[in-house]
Amino acid sequence: MSTPAPQPDAYARAVDRFTLAGKLSAAGMMLSWDGQTHMPRGGAWARGEEMAALTEVSADLIGSRAAADELEEAEAMAGALEAPERADLHEMRRLWAHAAAAPKALQTAKARISQNLQAIWVDARANNDFASFAVPFAELLVVIREIAAAKAEALGLTPYGAMIDEYDPGVGEAMIDPIFADLARSLPPLIAEVRERQARWPAPLLFGEVPVESQAALSRRLAAAVGHRSENFRIDAAPHPFSVPHSPGDVRFTTRYDVTNPRFSILATLHEAGHAMYEFNLPREFAFHPAGLARGASMHESQSLSLEMLAGRSREFLTFLAPLMAETFGGDSAVWSVANVHNAWRRLDNGFIRVEADEVSYPLHVIMRYRLERALIAGDLTVADIPAAWDELFEQLIGRTPPSLGQGCLQDIHWAAGLFGYFPNYAMGAVLAAQFFERATADDPQILPALARGDFAPYFAWVRPRIHERASLTDFASLVADATGQPLGPEPFKRHLRRRYLEEPQP
Amino acid sequence: MSTPAPQPDAYARAVDRFTLAGKLSAAGMMLSWDGQTHMPRGGAWARGEEMAALTEVSADLIGSRAAADELEEAEAMAGALEAPERADLHEMRRLWAHAAAAPKALQTAKARISQNLQAIWVDARANNDFASFAVPFAELLVVIREIAAAKAEALGLTPYGAMIDEYDPGVGEAMIDPIFADLARSLPPLIAEVRERQARWPAPLLFGEVPVESQAALSRRLAAAVGHRSENFRIDAAPHPFSVPHSPGDVRFTTRYDVTNPRFSILATLHEAGHAMYEFNLPREFAFHPAGLARGASMHESQSLSLEMLAGRSREFLTFLAPLMAETFGGDSAVWSVANVHNAWRRLDNGFIRVEADEVSYPLHVIMRYRLERALIAGDLTVADIPAAWDELFEQLIGRTPPSLGQGCLQDIHWAAGLFGYFPNYAMGAVLAAQFFERATADDPQILPALARGDFAPYFAWVRPRIHERASLTDFASLVADATGQPLGPEPFKRHLRRRYLEEPQP
Repeated sequence: MSTPAPQPDAYARAVDRFTLAGKLSAAGMMLSWDGQTHMPRGGAWARGEEMAALTEVSADLIGSRAAADELEEAEAMAGALEAPERADLHEMRRLWAHAAAAPKALQTAKARISQNLQAIWVDARANNDFASFAVPFAELLVVIREIAAAKAEALGLTPYGAMIDEYDPGVGEAMIDPIFADLARSLPPLIAEVRERQARWPAPLLFGEVPVESQAALSRRLAAAVGHRSENFRIDAAPHPFSVPHSPGDVRFTTRYDVTNPRFSILATLHEAGHAMYEFNLPREFAFHPAGLARGASMHESQSLSLEMLAGRSREFLTFLAPLMAETFGGDSAVWSVANVHNAWRRLDNGFIRVEADEVSYPLHVIMRYRLERALIAGDLTVADIPAAWDELFEQLIGRTPPSLGQGCLQDIHWAAGLFGYFPNYAMGAVLAAQFFERATADDPQILPALARGDFAPYFAWVRPRIHERASLTDFASLVADATGQPLGPEPFKRHLRRRYLEEPQP
Repeated sequence: MSTPAPQPDAYARAVDRFTLAGKLSAAGMMLSWDGQTHMPRGGAWARGEEMAALTEVSADLIGSRAAADELEEAEAMAGALEAPERADLHEMRRLWAHAAAAPKALQTAKARISQNLQAIWVDARANNDFASFAVPFAELLVVIREIAAAKAEALGLTPYGAMIDEYDPGVGEAMIDPIFADLARSLPPLIAEVRERQARWPAPLLFGEVPVESQAALSRRLAAAVGHRSENFRIDAAPHPFSVPHSPGDVRFTTRYDVTNPRFSILATLHEAGHAMYEFNLPREFAFHPAGLARGASMHESQSLSLEMLAGRSREFLTFLAPLMAETFGGDSAVWSVANVHNAWRRLDNGFIRVEADEVSYPLHVIMRYRLERALIAGDLTVADIPAAWDELFEQLIGRTPPSLGQGCLQDIHWAAGLFGYFPNYAMGAVLAAQFFERATADDPQILPALARGDFAPYFAWVRPRIHERASLTDFASLVADATGQPLGPEPFKRHLRRRYLEEPQP
């Protein structure tokens, strides 16, 4: 008599289910990348259908009754699992809760309304026309609030906290609130102090126009310096630069080339190269597993901002970058002198647009969105009142009033796309990056001198085992505490800004 | 009391299920396109996982018990459906039968072995090493034969017929056998006659090297002449040109640029542009439906070969093409004279490679593979006997003996990839293209004169309503009979070859 083949246990079956969904998700990100880089315009409708199909099938896989039963059975045997497997199971349960909490009809309505609203937003922004945006946005908000309420109940969080948890588990309002309150208080006077100092500096020489090909050549050299290898990445141009967490071994990203503004592509390339290196270093043995994913939006943003802001704008790195610009871009060498690049790189701006904001003001742009969207979800702010509330907060935090709605409350696509709870990561990532970088450069004094040679290896030797390779195998707070010996706080970020913008020798 | 919302009927539910699978299939083709054009090498493992996930989820959707129940219920109400809906249902049933017939374990084994075998094949071909290929290929064949037997039973076909049905429903052995027998008899003496005539022609001037950029510029002009619009397609370079039936509105394709052989990219571009135009013209209201797909491999190949062989090598088109080559490629104008291009374009080859074969010999390359793979599936030929059988058939049909295995039985990837029953379409498509083109040019005498101006519109005006827009809304035989008034037969193809290669004035 033959013994029957052993059946896979509940954990193994859950892994099969969730890694299958993980692969579908990677496929969806590939379609999204193509949609923003290579797809002929006429393919848009079908591409939307294909991506919606992937979302539907994934949600059916991981939000189903069968998934819940499997998870329950696997959780009952959790004592027999290793720690990484238990972490995996924990992430599966979270994904299940998000997928199962909101009725499918709501998810479909959200997708449908926001698809339509994004097209309306494009015109509304161009025409400073809030009225045409307001009604469909109010409809979307009704659906979003229902989803938030359903998830809040399932996850034991506030409705807005449940929205954050979707992108950024472990980074809740309790962690954000004191940090944002501190920055809202301390950044405006810091900005005033920096402005006063910079008023005495000589005006930087203008960079002028730089052809796209030269900028692309520099982007490739920067990606190589960061440590990307040609067999694992590619850079494409896209209107809005992005790095999609792609698939293991393929961490392509995009940048944007503006002939009139070569600084943009340099910073965007460093930013996306940072995201991509995080993805590249995730543990291959947990590829497609929930616990094998990056630890969330703030952690991801900390890795891009470490490269763009901390390393990439450091005095040391600029001594490497400026001669490289001279060599690659050509023209008047005085423009590409270290002093001039340094001067240009340090300037605070006077603008209204988040994505163009300087390093010091940037968190304030995020904080105001955080306050507004939390009020929208809570029902404390109506859609009609957004423009006035926006201008009031902008004046209060940044000290200026936007000249138009397109430069005010209509500037970002996020709300039109149904993204709520996502904005905080942009500022939390900056705070986190400063805390990591301060500790890294203290642990290894060679990190900054190496950057002066364009060598990122010592930096990654510090961050890879502490952040990248730990993926979602542990929680956010433990990652931060293990790496820096402290809970996340605003002090390292503030010290960093003071050092760079007030104490560093004048360019 | 409120009335309950009406439930979607069984047909509507089946449509939801099968269009969902259709969207996943389109997503998979996109991933495949990227894998062959843009993906960094290091992404190969993960890409394989992602594509396998799509295949698994699709098979679960359309091969399930639930799908069968839905289809049964829908078939019971077929009397209430319109003809296109009944055609749709018919195609769903066929897809279900293919998905449900073979046990999942066999499909998985096939995917696993063939994945591995393709890598072995690359080395085996390079080293003329049949021994290393033979054992894993024999293993694959065991699995393929089991799948064929299971599908044969489910579909009421022979095992090999069931393999064909997967790619080419309605084109069975009963249709192929007499056509291939006729061609195997009539082409060798025709080739001898053409060779004798061509021996008296002056040798064509060599084209020489043409830079990739110039070839790419010509490819874009040809695609535009064919009628492709920039908002709906793009051309990328790939080692093996292919057109993936993509998604509605996005019919991108690839070509291959060889600096030493500009003819290759021209013919590949016309070929793939023909496939892509078929896809572009499929009825949008049946997008992602089974009946909205192209009518199978032979019909698809007829559309590419109509452009590459019938229109694209016609004397009329060459009078348009030759000056365009002169203008785009530059250099010695005598090389790009109509007479010289015509002379070069007409020559029979003396080679051993199917994909490089001339128009007259090409079907013989296909016929020998058809005979061999049918014998392999039937168990009448063992793997060990393939090299000898190959050489014997090549000698018999084409009159030469391949100098190596790499130029013999190891030249094509199809068998290593587990593709059986696919080869016939390459020759059936040529036969079909000739029958369509003969009828089209008789129905509209302006088609050929228009080609002399690079104008394909009259040709597509004929073929679009007769073939493209009918998709899979009717069966193969009806499409052919409705368009040409005849069942498919070899006579138009033979008349075409005699006209072009024996009767047309010498270049």
